[in-house]
Amino acid sequence: MGAGALRSVGSRLSALGSGRRTALVSDRSVMALYGPAVTESLRAAGFAVTEVLVPEGETAKTLAVAERCWDECLAAGLDRTSTLLALGGGAVGDLAGFVAATYMRGIPFVQLPTTLVAQVDAAIGGKVAIDHPRAKNLIGAFHQPRVVVVDPSVLLTLPEAEFRSGLAEVVKHGIVLDAAYFDDVALHVPEILSRDLPTLERIIAGSCRLKGRIVEADEREGGPRAALNYGHTVGHALEAATSFSKWLHGEAVSLGIVAAARIAEQLGLAAPDTGARQVKLLKAIGLPVAFSAPAPEVIVRAIASDKKARDGKVPFVLAPRIGEFRLVFDIPADLIAQVLGEIQRAAA
Amino acid sequence: MGAGALRSVGSRLSALGSGRRTALVSDRSVMALYGPAVTESLRAAGFAVTEVLVPEGETAKTLAVAERCWDECLAAGLDRTSTLLALGGGAVGDLAGFVAATYMRGIPFVQLPTTLVAQVDAAIGGKVAIDHPRAKNLIGAFHQPRVVVVDPSVLLTLPEAEFRSGLAEVVKHGIVLDAAYFDDVALHVPEILSRDLPTLERIIAGSCRLKGRIVEADEREGGPRAALNYGHTVGHALEAATSFSKWLHGEAVSLGIVAAARIAEQLGLAAPDTGARQVKLLKAIGLPVAFSAPAPEVIVRAIASDKKARDGKVPFVLAPRIGEFRLVFDIPADLIAQVLGEIQRAAA
Repeated sequence: MGAGALRSVGSRLSALGSGRRTALVSDRSVMALYGPAVTESLRAAGFAVTEVLVPEGETAKTLAVAERCWDECLAAGLDRTSTLLALGGGAVGDLAGFVAATYMRGIPFVQLPTTLVAQVDAAIGGKVAIDHPRAKNLIGAFHQPRVVVVDPSVLLTLPEAEFRSGLAEVVKHGIVLDAAYFDDVALHVPEILSRDLPTLERIIAGSCRLKGRIVEADEREGGPRAALNYGHTVGHALEAATSFSKWLHGEAVSLGIVAAARIAEQLGLAAPDTGARQVKLLKAIGLPVAFSAPAPEVIVRAIASDKKARDGKVPFVLAPRIGEFRLVFDIPADLIAQVLGEIQRAAA
Repeated sequence: MGAGALRSVGSRLSALGSGRRTALVSDRSVMALYGPAVTESLRAAGFAVTEVLVPEGETAKTLAVAERCWDECLAAGLDRTSTLLALGGGAVGDLAGFVAATYMRGIPFVQLPTTLVAQVDAAIGGKVAIDHPRAKNLIGAFHQPRVVVVDPSVLLTLPEAEFRSGLAEVVKHGIVLDAAYFDDVALHVPEILSRDLPTLERIIAGSCRLKGRIVEADEREGGPRAALNYGHTVGHALEAATSFSKWLHGEAVSLGIVAAARIAEQLGLAAPDTGARQVKLLKAIGLPVAFSAPAPEVIVRAIASDKKARDGKVPFVLAPRIGEFRLVFDIPADLIAQVLGEIQRAAA
């Protein structure tokens, strides 16, 4: 981690004793910006590099693109000692990670995240996947990266909305895992939004540490890892119900956090002011805290088909106070619909 | 394990606390023979069963078939607590295992092997995969089955050539892992070939134990698991060079064992008589120990593109004596070609 860290990729792979062949997966625009630095670093360390270009964003996460990646890995002579590197946002990491997880039953994998959401969340934890036409991330695996290289200076070129969207995960980590971290973020919103590099480095490192600790304790999400779904049950449903076209992921998560905070209040589970502090921070960052459509019933239906459903029940993560979480099953659909309706009426 | 064990599948899944939904993957003819027993057992234990039919044999191991399986799992409402069961030979197990490994990042999986090679080898150890048009098992994962139910009585309907082919793996386990097991097999060839059920149960249980012990020690094949590739380096090359049409897998492995035994002799690595005892047992079982085509150079080229190559080198498993193995790198291609030529001249 650090400004310029992308230039250290070659020496880091060398230190791991990796095989000589590598493939670098990215989309055209990210490859143009940061591909040369990575490729040079790899070649200088004696690695052969094959560049694999994939479509931008979520459109990369199809079976057809994965198939082309497998073809190109085979054509480049990649074997079990070879390394696949993902250079880009969460989607490129998810796709390339799935290809690495399944090529020859799994080859070494490196994450070079270039968006904030990838740096603080997607690149850490080994969840990789492609989408099914009817369900996001349906086909996937757990495949931990050997190395995650985080270079905060690449965030200086990130569009504003994407940057703010990534901050939703930062806020989430604070709410469910660490009150001091939440306060640090809340106290430094101006420095964060102006992308002050030392501040970004501290905040990103904090999120990486928090997420890394949880994933080490519970890779397969049988326990505490579920905390990381805070805001995501309603968030995913909002995205799915609008065909992933209305909000960026972090924007939907922000709304999901608002809903989760209200549900916790309605259940009498949250300490006073807990929800208000969350909404205040999301607002200060410029993330949405209110919305008018789709209808509550549509969202509730989308929740019911969540991938995290276990024999029909969807677990909800709630925050009794900042820095704590609790997993609650069997939240009545009526209560969820009521809370969503309240948020919508407040917005009207 | 035991005659009639397929009827215990439902109660075993219940004991594991599995989710209510299951999918049973098989081909048409195996489903007709054994599907009803399994389905009844599952339904009696309160499980919902969706039957998923796939093509017979290796033709099931394509991305298109895997895609259809994912679709059908989703349509049947399978979630992370649901179980995928593979009923059939190694190919169905490989395909269904890959689907289970990747559906929602991995759901519980059960192997119900109905061929000898699946019972003693393929169903144990968690290697699952589909084929790439240019390379067998290229796309896969490690995904351990929760349960493997072995019912030797299903072998009574297995075609003779397939049964003998499965015995190649039995012989292999004896050669590299256990001299006493090798002797037990060699002393009871008539009972084995006449499919005496108590003998089959003992022999299959022995292979399962030997393979299970190796896989527990080394799931990802960084160490001793490589022993199980004995006979497979040349065997795979023979299959690949003949488009998998000339020999059954075990027949090619039998020839690969003959080649490995001769290479060990040529290197002065094998104790006297070690090779002769292997050839004698394979012959007694009715497995091929000689062949006339393809040309040695063609086979050597196919070996070079083995999936187990590490930065261009293919490790060879050799047996210094019965019950022992050694991994040897850098065996000269010339020596391999010479040995293959000798086997072919002896056959002429």
